[in-house]
Amino acid sequence: MSHAKPQPGPVAAPQPSAASPAARLNFADRILSAMERLQSTACVGLDPVHDKLPAQLRSSSPDPITAIERFAEGVIDAVAEIVPAVKFQSACFERYGAPGSAALARTMKRANDQGLVVILDAKRGDIGISAEHYAAAAVALGAHAITVNAYLGPSTVDPYLAAGLGVFILVRTSNLDSDAVQSLALTDGRTVAEMMADHAATLGTKHLGTHGMSSVGAVVGATKAEDGRALRARMPKQIFLVPGYGAQGGTAKDIRALLTPVGVSPTGGVLVTASRSVIYAFGPNDADWKLSVERASQLLVSELRAIQG
Amino acid sequence: MSHAKPQPGPVAAPQPSAASPAARLNFADRILSAMERLQSTACVGLDPVHDKLPAQLRSSSPDPITAIERFAEGVIDAVAEIVPAVKFQSACFERYGAPGSAALARTMKRANDQGLVVILDAKRGDIGISAEHYAAAAVALGAHAITVNAYLGPSTVDPYLAAGLGVFILVRTSNLDSDAVQSLALTDGRTVAEMMADHAATLGTKHLGTHGMSSVGAVVGATKAEDGRALRARMPKQIFLVPGYGAQGGTAKDIRALLTPVGVSPTGGVLVTASRSVIYAFGPNDADWKLSVERASQLLVSELRAIQG
Repeated sequence: MSHAKPQPGPVAAPQPSAASPAARLNFADRILSAMERLQSTACVGLDPVHDKLPAQLRSSSPDPITAIERFAEGVIDAVAEIVPAVKFQSACFERYGAPGSAALARTMKRANDQGLVVILDAKRGDIGISAEHYAAAAVALGAHAITVNAYLGPSTVDPYLAAGLGVFILVRTSNLDSDAVQSLALTDGRTVAEMMADHAATLGTKHLGTHGMSSVGAVVGATKAEDGRALRARMPKQIFLVPGYGAQGGTAKDIRALLTPVGVSPTGGVLVTASRSVIYAFGPNDADWKLSVERASQLLVSELRAIQG
Repeated sequence: MSHAKPQPGPVAAPQPSAASPAARLNFADRILSAMERLQSTACVGLDPVHDKLPAQLRSSSPDPITAIERFAEGVIDAVAEIVPAVKFQSACFERYGAPGSAALARTMKRANDQGLVVILDAKRGDIGISAEHYAAAAVALGAHAITVNAYLGPSTVDPYLAAGLGVFILVRTSNLDSDAVQSLALTDGRTVAEMMADHAATLGTKHLGTHGMSSVGAVVGATKAEDGRALRARMPKQIFLVPGYGAQGGTAKDIRALLTPVGVSPTGGVLVTASRSVIYAFGPNDADWKLSVERASQLLVSELRAIQG
């Protein structure tokens, strides 16, 4: 799978040829096609932290970011034929300054070259020209979609869509503390998360693909089944990027609550992310850590197939 | 003014010596001391966009990011003895990938070396280890404070404070569209922005400096005086980072509504940011664009002194 990856240049003079939204496949169609081809709704989260990497990789690398890059490459190669997408945690690379940015660019290119759909988990949220810059940076890195925080207002999401990216708007996150903001009740009867869900649904109507789903998706944690059902009812055409399954306590029941009604999308419209349970699946004595990662990703795919029946 | 700037390294093995919060001055004390010394509540926003730079700078630079870096250096040198702080818009540098990150690091170091308080406007918002990574990246760049989005919950702000950074929590932004989220009413009588303000005030109680103000500040736009007064009442000990003055329509009345009660802080507890009106103050025929920037920053400082009486 190849797609346009323009190089950085003046924002005021974009090259319309390769970077134009028209030249890019609708993100919903891209990810749903990949999910259908592999019969898989799993997304591997690349959140590599140096002290959790295989010992031999750490000791054989000249510095931490090199070890992280080699590890990310190994994970990408291990899961490329098993899962449709990978999600890069931008912070894990930004931590290392310019060398980290360069490593992120190279590993995102490798994921593209391996045919994976690439999501940049950067949780950006800013207005006008700043949002345009963040979008341009994500496109230059080779991202097909980006996570976005819309606390500054729904129109702050537009620049990412104008750049041809899919977006996953942070609606309901899986960390416990999120209740202190997202679960509060508005006078109109909605929770704050449901208000954000309505913004995502409204924004999404102009970005539907041939599968009937939108390039405007939502981050919805797999932590409370009743919340999940309510959010799916408000966002029938949003693909849900779902953190929190497994390690963070999300159960099969919580996942089922997030699925689209039968027939709307054969995939159920969910992309379930798992990071630690897959990328750190190796043991200290494993001869081949990549094989352990590969098997963990296969196990995740099988579990999710069973859940979605 | 010098402060600890640790180099990137493994997150699991930070060097406690230079990077430890104890070794860093409380951010509120740092910025208030600088404001008092210069009798200035102005902050220059470095949001450089290539096509707005002086023509001779563009034509004499080998590439856009070099032009941006030279421009940012010139602005820093021009305003260093006039304003207490500069605010770097991260997106303007990230746009250029790894070379942009390297340029950001160099210009933030220059601002430090010139004695400026350095705010990284990155609007980051993530949980746990990811937030720790973003905080470590900001410290390594030489930031004294960072803007943070707390939609994921108030505790997601803790890692930045633990790293010794000041924070400005996004409470009420100055873009029109922010009403669609921040002005909505909760059943408990607060707006969404007021709820976020209460989180900032609560978080801030553990981070008071010797001036009586907190290292947990808030972004509060200068756009609606009545909203501003209500937010100041909820956040008496927060320093407000105030966008929207001038170019975006904020008036003297709007600024006055944000000041702390007389006597609480001699500075009024506000840091008013202006970008375009200062950094692009030169005309096409100006022989010395840096002189125009310097004069515009002096004008801003004078205006703000008059407003605050």
